Amino acid sequence: MKMSNMLVLTMKEVPAEAEISSHQLMLRAGMMRKMASGIYNYMPLGLKVLKKVEDIVREEMNNTGAQEFLASAMIPGELWQESGRWDAYGAEMFRVKDRNDRDFCLGPTHEEVFTDIARNEIKSYKQLPINLYQIQTKYRDERRPRFGVMRSREFVMKDAYSFDKDQEGLDISYNKMHDAYVRIFNRCGLDAKPVEADSGAIGGSNSAEFMVKSEVGEDDVVFCTCCDYAANIEKAVSTPEISQEETKKDLGEVETPNARTIEELVKFFNTTEKKFAKTLIFNADGKIVAVMVRGDREVNETKVANALGGVNNLQMATEAEVKKATSAAIGFAGPIGINVDTLLVDNEVANMYNFIVGANKTGYHYENVNYGRDFKGTLGDFRNITEGEKCPKCGGEVTIARGTEVGHIFKLGTKYSEAMNANFIDENGQSKPFIMGCYGIGVTRTVASIIEQNHDENGIVWPLAVAPYEVSVIPVNSKDEEQMKVAEEIYAQLKVLGVDVIMDDRKERAGVKFKDSDLMGIPMRITVGKKIAEGQVEFKLRNAEDTETINIADVYNRVKSIFQENSMKLK
Amino acid sequence: MKMSNMLVLTMKEVPAEAEISSHQLMLRAGMMRKMASGIYNYMPLGLKVLKKVEDIVREEMNNTGAQEFLASAMIPGELWQESGRWDAYGAEMFRVKDRNDRDFCLGPTHEEVFTDIARNEIKSYKQLPINLYQIQTKYRDERRPRFGVMRSREFVMKDAYSFDKDQEGLDISYNKMHDAYVRIFNRCGLDAKPVEADSGAIGGSNSAEFMVKSEVGEDDVVFCTCCDYAANIEKAVSTPEISQEETKKDLGEVETPNARTIEELVKFFNTTEKKFAKTLIFNADGKIVAVMVRGDREVNETKVANALGGVNNLQMATEAEVKKATSAAIGFAGPIGINVDTLLVDNEVANMYNFIVGANKTGYHYENVNYGRDFKGTLGDFRNITEGEKCPKCGGEVTIARGTEVGHIFKLGTKYSEAMNANFIDENGQSKPFIMGCYGIGVTRTVASIIEQNHDENGIVWPLAVAPYEVSVIPVNSKDEEQMKVAEEIYAQLKVLGVDVIMDDRKERAGVKFKDSDLMGIPMRITVGKKIAEGQVEFKLRNAEDTETINIADVYNRVKSIFQENSMKLK
Repeated sequence: MKMSNMLVLTMKEVPAEAEISSHQLMLRAGMMRKMASGIYNYMPLGLKVLKKVEDIVREEMNNTGAQEFLASAMIPGELWQESGRWDAYGAEMFRVKDRNDRDFCLGPTHEEVFTDIARNEIKSYKQLPINLYQIQTKYRDERRPRFGVMRSREFVMKDAYSFDKDQEGLDISYNKMHDAYVRIFNRCGLDAKPVEADSGAIGGSNSAEFMVKSEVGEDDVVFCTCCDYAANIEKAVSTPEISQEETKKDLGEVETPNARTIEELVKFFNTTEKKFAKTLIFNADGKIVAVMVRGDREVNETKVANALGGVNNLQMATEAEVKKATSAAIGFAGPIGINVDTLLVDNEVANMYNFIVGANKTGYHYENVNYGRDFKGTLGDFRNITEGEKCPKCGGEVTIARGTEVGHIFKLGTKYSEAMNANFIDENGQSKPFIMGCYGIGVTRTVASIIEQNHDENGIVWPLAVAPYEVSVIPVNSKDEEQMKVAEEIYAQLKVLGVDVIMDDRKERAGVKFKDSDLMGIPMRITVGKKIAEGQVEFKLRNAEDTETINIADVYNRVKSIFQENSMKLK
Repeated sequence: MKMSNMLVLTMKEVPAEAEISSHQLMLRAGMMRKMASGIYNYMPLGLKVLKKVEDIVREEMNNTGAQEFLASAMIPGELWQESGRWDAYGAEMFRVKDRNDRDFCLGPTHEEVFTDIARNEIKSYKQLPINLYQIQTKYRDERRPRFGVMRSREFVMKDAYSFDKDQEGLDISYNKMHDAYVRIFNRCGLDAKPVEADSGAIGGSNSAEFMVKSEVGEDDVVFCTCCDYAANIEKAVSTPEISQEETKKDLGEVETPNARTIEELVKFFNTTEKKFAKTLIFNADGKIVAVMVRGDREVNETKVANALGGVNNLQMATEAEVKKATSAAIGFAGPIGINVDTLLVDNEVANMYNFIVGANKTGYHYENVNYGRDFKGTLGDFRNITEGEKCPKCGGEVTIARGTEVGHIFKLGTKYSEAMNANFIDENGQSKPFIMGCYGIGVTRTVASIIEQNHDENGIVWPLAVAPYEVSVIPVNSKDEEQMKVAEEIYAQLKVLGVDVIMDDRKERAGVKFKDSDLMGIPMRITVGKKIAEGQVEFKLRNAEDTETINIADVYNRVKSIFQENSMKLK
C-alpha cells in the first residue's frame, strides 16, 4: 500500500472519549471510529489487524480438527425459550421483532444455536467427537460500554462448541482447546495466562479463563507467588485462618445501642474485626439466605450461588426481608434464632472461639458465641481470598491483580443438551445427551489487549504477527527522484518477498512520516535518505532504540532475519 | 480434510422447502441449513465457498485501490433521519431499540454510514479519490423470503462507496468498478451480464446491474438479438411504433354502457387494441397523476416516477380518487377534461390517429381523438418495451428474459452528500459536496447463482476457483491397507502442492463416496482402487463424462494442468 492512496486517519490529539491507552491509540492510529456508544467502525488499519488475529485463531482452530461454521447473528426467540434463557438474559440482549411480530435476538452467544445444529445433524456416536467454531459478530447491550472495544456492544468473537459421547472425550476436547488457546495468544504476542474460573453449580475444575493483567481489567485474579496457581477471585479457594484455641465461655447478650457496623462494634467491644462473625442476608431467587463470614472478610457471591445449586438472581435482601428474618433493625442479624431458608457458614467461622454476632434484636449482640454449641449451618468456602493469604495448591503466598478476560474455555456437560433434547445414539443403541464444551475468544478485545501490552509514548508497538503492515518504507524527501526510485525498488521487492509493506510516499515532512509510522506501530522502518549516495539506508525496529545503517543490498536479508526471529516464514 | 473427521451433511432427498436447484443443492450438499425463514446457518462446506468468493471479490477490489473497512451492522437511527430514509424504508428495515430506548436499525445498506465517515474523515480534494468497501452481513426483512439465499433476510454483501471531487472522477471510479465486476464474476465462473438499470430521477446512463439469466429471476431484462444492448425493463427505452397516417376526423362522444375494459371495448368498437389509448390514474406522494399509453401497452412505473422527479410512493389511485379526477365510474377515464395534477402521455400516443379514450363520463367514450388537437400533456417514454420491438441502440429486435441481479453499480452523485452535508474543500478553497458512487455485490446470492449455472442431475459442478475442495481422493475400499496408503500419499502430496484436497476415508461403499463427491461438486476426483497394483489410479473431472486411467506418478502434473487450464496458480 502506498500512503498517498490511503485514507490516513492518524491524530495528534488524545481523544477526550478515550480513557485507556488501547482505546486512545486505536483512535489516534486510525484503526477505528465510534459509531455509537460501544459500537465502532473498523477503519482499514484496524480491520487489517483484526483479520490477522482472526487468521491466527482460524489456523490454530483448524489444526485441532475443529470445523468452521457461520451461524446467523439473528436467532429465533424459540431456541432461547427452550433453553430457558430468553427471560433470564435480561436487558443485555438486543431483541428484534420481524414484520410478522416474531421474536428474534441478536446473538450475544450461540450455545442454543449450536446445540440445535447438533441435535439436527449428529445422530450417532460414530460422528463424534465434533468441534464446531465460528468467528462472528456478537451483540450485547452492555449497561456501561467503555474502554473502546474492551467492553463494546458489537464485537467479534470466536466461539467453539465441542460435542462428545462421554466425559473422557470432553476432557480431550477441552485440553485441545486449552493448548490451542495458549498457542493463539503466544502467536499474537499477548501474555495471557489461563486461570481457574467459576464453572457454576456443577463444580470441578471445568473452566479456565485466559487473563491479561491490566489495571483496567474488570476481574480480580489470584496468583500464587510460589507456584503456577492462578484463579479468578470468584473461584479461588480460601483456606481458613486457624484461630488460637480458647476455652469456650458462656454465651452472653450485650446491649450495643449505637453499634451496628463492624467498625462501630470494634470500637464498642475494644477488640479486632477478627473477633466478629458478620451475617449477611440475601434473596436468592425468592429464598432468604443468610451467609456468615468473619468480620474482616468479604462474602463471595459466586460461591454462595453455587452452594445453593445455582441461582439466577442473587441480591442483598431488602430492609423488609431483613426485618422479617431477624425481627430486628438492619445491623443486628446473627445466626441464633434467625428465620431464613438457609444459613451458610464460612469454614473459618466454624474455627473461631468466643466470637461476637448480632442477636436478631435491635440494639443487642451476643458475645462468646461458638459454632456447633450455639448454632449450626451449612459449612463451606463462602468468602473471597485476600492478598497475602495461603495458596490452596502449595501453601505459598498469593497476590491479587486486575485482569481482562480474552478467552474462556468451559465444560458445559449436558446443561444445554438436556434442556434442548439434543441426543445421539451410543454404542449400545441408547439415546444420550451430548457432552458439550464451549470455548470463546474475544477477538476485538484481544486486539485491544495486545495494544495495552505493546505500546510506548509514541504509539503502538505491534508484535510482527499481527502488525497491520510489517515494514514501512519512508523516502525522506518525496520530491527527490533518486530517493523515490530506491524506495520504490525496496517496496516492490519486499512485496514480491511476501512482506506486508507500506510506503509513505506522501508529500509530508520526514518527521510527520516517522511519527505516523511509530503511532501505527509498524515493526520495521526503512528510511531512504541521503545515504543512498553510499548505497545505504537506515533500518530501525519499532521496539529498538537504535537505528542501523545497512547496505541497500542487505535490506531483504535483514527483514528476513526479523521474520525468522519471530518464528514467521516468508513466501 | 479427511471426511472421517468431517461433519458430512449430504442428503439424498430433495428437501420440500426448496423450489429451485441452487436452494435444493445447497441443502443437499450440506452447505447450509435454515435457521428461520430467510435466515441460514452456513455449514463448513458452504462457508468455504463463501470465503472463496469473498477472497476473489477482495482481491479484485484491492487491485483497484479500494480500501477495505468494516462498518457496524447496527446503525443509529439519527443517520437515517438525516438522509430522510428512516421513514421511507418501511417494513423492510429491522429496527432495534437499545436499553436506553435509542433507535437503531440493522443495516440493509450503508450509504448513510459511509457518507458520515467521509464527512468526518475526508477534508480536502487532495485526499480524493477514495473508494471504501466492506464485505459484511446485511439485513432486510423481506416480505417474501424465498429460494434460499437468493432472497434471504440475512445475507453477505460487498458494498463499496466512492468519493470524488468531480463528475469526471466519478466516471473513472465507476468504470474501474465496472471492470472489476466483470473480472470478479468471470473468475467466479459466473456468466453475469452488465445491463443498463434505472438510476432514478437524475437520469443518464448512471447505473448498471450485473444480471444472471435465470427462470426464477425477479427482473425482466431486455437483450438485443443483434447488438450488445441490455437493459432492465424498468430502464429499457421503448421506440414508438409509427401509426399509419390518417385524416383527423371529428371528435365524437359514443355511448358505451357495458364496455369498460380494453377487451370489452375492442369487441364493442369492433377494432384492435392499438386503436385505444388507456388512461391510468396514480397517486404519487399525494399528487394525482394520469398516464396514457396505447391500449395494448403496459405502463412503466419507474419511468413515470422518474418523470415526476422522483417519487417515494407510487400507487394506483383509489376508487374515490378516480371518481374525483374523472367525475365518472372506473373504466371511463380519458385525457379530455380530466382533473389531475399531471397528465403524462406516452410518445406513442402522440403519434396515433383517430383513437378512442374514456370520456370522463360514466358509460361514454370519445372516438376520433387526436393528440395536440383534443388534449395535451407531458410527452415521454412511459411504457414497457415488449418482446420483438426495436432495440433503441441498433434497431434490431429485442428479446426479454428473466434475470437475477448479482451486482449493481450506481452513480449516486450528491444525493447523500447534500442531504447529510458531507463536504470537502476543493482546489479553490470552496466547500463542495462529495460526488459519490455506490457499488454492491450480493455475495451469498452470487454463490447460489453459480450453482444455478453449474449443476447437473448428480449435484453441483463447481468452477475450480470457488470449489470448496478442488480435488477429492477416494480410496475405493477404506479397509484395504494398500489403497489407503496410496491415497494418503496422494492426499499429503497434493496438500503440500497447495491443493485444497479432501480425502474420503470413511468406511462407506465406493458408490456412496462417488455420489457425495459429485453432489458436493468437487472438480477433480482421484479414485484409488485395484489398479494401484499396476501403479495406476483413475482421474475424473466433475464436468467430464470420461474417466482417465493415469499413472500415480502423473497425478500431480494432471492436477497442475487443470489449474493452468483455469488460469489458476498453485504454490
